[in-house]
Amino acid sequence: MRRTRFDQASCPIARTTDLFGDWWTPLVLRELLYGRSRFDQIQQRLDISRPILTQRLRRLEEEGMVTRRPYQEAPERHEYELTPKGEAAWGVLAAMWRFGSDWLFPGAGPPVELFDRSTGRAVVPAVFDESTRAEIDHTRVGVRARQT
Amino acid sequence: MRRTRFDQASCPIARTTDLFGDWWTPLVLRELLYGRSRFDQIQQRLDISRPILTQRLRRLEEEGMVTRRPYQEAPERHEYELTPKGEAAWGVLAAMWRFGSDWLFPGAGPPVELFDRSTGRAVVPAVFDESTRAEIDHTRVGVRARQT
Repeated sequence: MRRTRFDQASCPIARTTDLFGDWWTPLVLRELLYGRSRFDQIQQRLDISRPILTQRLRRLEEEGMVTRRPYQEAPERHEYELTPKGEAAWGVLAAMWRFGSDWLFPGAGPPVELFDRSTGRAVVPAVFDESTRAEIDHTRVGVRARQT
Repeated sequence: MRRTRFDQASCPIARTTDLFGDWWTPLVLRELLYGRSRFDQIQQRLDISRPILTQRLRRLEEEGMVTRRPYQEAPERHEYELTPKGEAAWGVLAAMWRFGSDWLFPGAGPPVELFDRSTGRAVVPAVFDESTRAEIDHTRVGVRARQT
């Protein structure tokens, strides 16, 4: 039984749900963004079953978000590299990080934070409008047919 | 069979996956953010089964993201209002919108865009660092124990 698919919806949120809503997928992308590239490494870090990880990586490959290449034969082992589309997942994961940090650790707050390894400064992702870099008041936002 | 839960993970992305990874949940939040508040309205817009929508709204209520109140008796009907925690879901949905717009409409691009209803200008969500409002270079980002 396949759940309802949203990959042909006209709404970009719906299409992204189809992809990121695949259970485990955001965490597989997280590991790849952290620079963990080998199947075994990701499998052990996430403590995920091998068939599920195989299926998720195959989906990401089909979507053009990762490329796969063998780094060992007998037994054959693969590593995975993010494409530009895969790297773009960072925005979604960063927004998830922010929401989770702010709202899902009642009491003491999250035990972890992001930081810039060059400067040592904490990094706090937030969503702004790209051209004005101002906060977006979502109560004023509507959806219309694309003008451009 | 309940899939693996991530709601006690130390990683904010993992905790948010537990919530947003619930199939349909981002679209229910989208409808609420668009100002659609009544069960029947959301159910018809999404063409979602009533039991699934009931379950998703109950989860959001348990999470403190929506409050429910009756607006009609015989038959009893409810409407739902986002709490501040629910409103904060905007950041995640905005990042999903952006990713979907950029990457999931090959060819002609998405048929829709966001705009500011006051100014008429297109709105393009993007993730920046909150204090510097600069782009975040994810290849320089690491995770550490929280310093503050």
